[in-house]
Amino acid sequence: MTAFASRWVEPPASVTERAGGLARGFRAAGVPAGIKPSGDPDLALLVSSEPDTVSAARFTRSGVLAAPVVLCRTRCRLDALRAVVVNSGNANAATGNRGLEDAARMQGAGAMAAGVHEELVAVASTGVIGEPMPMDGVPRGILAARTELDADGDAAFWRAIATTDKFEKRLSLDVALPSGGTVRVSAQVKGAGMIQPGFATMLCFVQTDAALAPETADLLLGVCVKRSFERISVDGQLSTNDTVLLMASGASGVVVAPESPDELALGGVLDYALRRLALQIVRDGEGAARTGRVEVTGGDDGAVERVARAVANSPLVKAALHGGDANWGRVAQAVGAALPGTAPLAFDVAIDGVAVCSGGVALPHEPPAFGDEVEYAVALPGSGAETEVFFSDLSHEYVRVNAEYTT
Amino acid sequence: MTAFASRWVEPPASVTERAGGLARGFRAAGVPAGIKPSGDPDLALLVSSEPDTVSAARFTRSGVLAAPVVLCRTRCRLDALRAVVVNSGNANAATGNRGLEDAARMQGAGAMAAGVHEELVAVASTGVIGEPMPMDGVPRGILAARTELDADGDAAFWRAIATTDKFEKRLSLDVALPSGGTVRVSAQVKGAGMIQPGFATMLCFVQTDAALAPETADLLLGVCVKRSFERISVDGQLSTNDTVLLMASGASGVVVAPESPDELALGGVLDYALRRLALQIVRDGEGAARTGRVEVTGGDDGAVERVARAVANSPLVKAALHGGDANWGRVAQAVGAALPGTAPLAFDVAIDGVAVCSGGVALPHEPPAFGDEVEYAVALPGSGAETEVFFSDLSHEYVRVNAEYTT
Repeated sequence: MTAFASRWVEPPASVTERAGGLARGFRAAGVPAGIKPSGDPDLALLVSSEPDTVSAARFTRSGVLAAPVVLCRTRCRLDALRAVVVNSGNANAATGNRGLEDAARMQGAGAMAAGVHEELVAVASTGVIGEPMPMDGVPRGILAARTELDADGDAAFWRAIATTDKFEKRLSLDVALPSGGTVRVSAQVKGAGMIQPGFATMLCFVQTDAALAPETADLLLGVCVKRSFERISVDGQLSTNDTVLLMASGASGVVVAPESPDELALGGVLDYALRRLALQIVRDGEGAARTGRVEVTGGDDGAVERVARAVANSPLVKAALHGGDANWGRVAQAVGAALPGTAPLAFDVAIDGVAVCSGGVALPHEPPAFGDEVEYAVALPGSGAETEVFFSDLSHEYVRVNAEYTT
Repeated sequence: MTAFASRWVEPPASVTERAGGLARGFRAAGVPAGIKPSGDPDLALLVSSEPDTVSAARFTRSGVLAAPVVLCRTRCRLDALRAVVVNSGNANAATGNRGLEDAARMQGAGAMAAGVHEELVAVASTGVIGEPMPMDGVPRGILAARTELDADGDAAFWRAIATTDKFEKRLSLDVALPSGGTVRVSAQVKGAGMIQPGFATMLCFVQTDAALAPETADLLLGVCVKRSFERISVDGQLSTNDTVLLMASGASGVVVAPESPDELALGGVLDYALRRLALQIVRDGEGAARTGRVEVTGGDDGAVERVARAVANSPLVKAALHGGDANWGRVAQAVGAALPGTAPLAFDVAIDGVAVCSGGVALPHEPPAFGDEVEYAVALPGSGAETEVFFSDLSHEYVRVNAEYTT
């Protein structure tokens, strides 16, 4: 893992960064199973050894759901998952009954490998949509992964869930809780394109060895997903497969009680971890060179959300960000398009603190310097609402990657 | 003008294509006036010599309106326009009171040049947003254009309204009406990026020498705009400046009465002309190599519109179109994202007549051949609604053009 730094995400004082290693109670592995034509690792297994493991999950809200998402939502105890089987290279989406059967076979093989009931095994997939799963090597792959399960298997696990990702997105943190206990949080995430998660991003797996009630796991995950994966966009596209799973093994022996200072502290660390991973997805962004953050204030909740999404998803704003071009007229264009019929709209725009537009009128200004992170602040008339969206630029590389993805 | 051909737009039998020339009663010119740093023509003037000229107009519905749009909507007799002053190289948008004053000065100079009252002169601008108009050369430019006004000035007029356009988009048609009269329709349009018109595209000027009532002009323009500029998208972006103006001089002496066969025939020709020009904007599309058409049927009016826009504006679909890649999973992704919470959604997809997905499930198929025009048909459950959107691909050239536009 490379060192992570961003002015937008500060690590809490309570965390110590580790080079790797899963939270206690978890083991993972990743192997090749013949799904990716390249022969790269494409099958990942994560298992908790703790019978009392609790979990929480969020999924895409797309109207077109991949088979593994349907399986998880209908055939899993999402508050008590013990294992996860993930494949990359095929999304198992728009694959009908055969796809559901394939996902069920993956769940069954995962249950055998983990030695737990099927309903305690989640399945996730990512890759090409609309092609049947190449299942030939999958059962054997799951058994091979079982023999390689390791407490330091998070790196191998990550490699096997990745597709177009350009760099590793995982973390391992030791957390000193206020009450004196120490717990670990580990997480692995993949995603670079088709990213404007509705509830979640492509795939994210978070583990902790804290002992949590299922309600606490669900609450913490829900709050943190809203502030992380729901606030990013690479290309405004919503996947059929988005899945975020939090699992808490309790193996540290540290009980984090509801409404305790420890819960608050752990929540702060999860918030940090998920925002950091979300920002890494944006930075990866299939060719992205610069990362933008748009902050919208004023107006009402609906208006700030529409404006923030319109700016973050504007190919014109994104191309200008790529070119280091402070052509803020494109921000004005996006604001106007998001709020039709409101002219004359007295909005302000600042780029990295340089005021370029006040009350809807251009201000004389020096061109803002464009670093790796660029901040667009849009103020609408009124007060009270605010939001943010992190977004990647639009690059030649994005076009290349996506013009050539299946061919 | 190069010959236009598309399987999606057929010329009516009644039209004869001309190489150029405005409808009778109109003269136009285009000159350099120091607005574009390149020194290229950037100021255009169109004048009708007929006192009884009638007109109709449509404008962007952006919440951020350019000064010329505000001026047209508040200070013009939009049903009786005699002249239009257009500049390229600067949008005169987000320019505040100074921008309104500059637009008024252009209107005033245009009125002098045309010898008509100010309120009979429309103003339109296109170019960079948020920079003050370089007005120094504009009054002189309008006078220079006046001396060059010509019945065959449509080519010069077009050059002076163009910005990133790669090829000429204008037409001149002689129309044989059912009643025996012959009228001419001429039109000039510019636009390549920031294109998902709400009411209109960037700038479009249409002339006819038919004699129309203002209500007829407005009716015909409204219907034709809905079927042309409202059904295209280059990049899903709504301009601050979109303007479409129809002017009818009556100089042919042919009166086209409401609800007559002639009105129907003229409407058919206007429909052809505007759809053809709209499709040319999509083909230009700042680097576009292929043109797509998505047709969505079934569902209801809201659903087909959301799905068609989601497919047409998906950077993943557009990049795959550019690469000639039949990765229809991206169409499925766009459909699902447009209709959240509707899973399982039994939708069909065909690409150029090849069925690739039925009832939400992939079908075995040969890869469709990708020509210059590619048709995506999406069928939603239910029946009754249908729509179409024409869209350009996403190319390296789009990124290059838009990363470097102002710098």
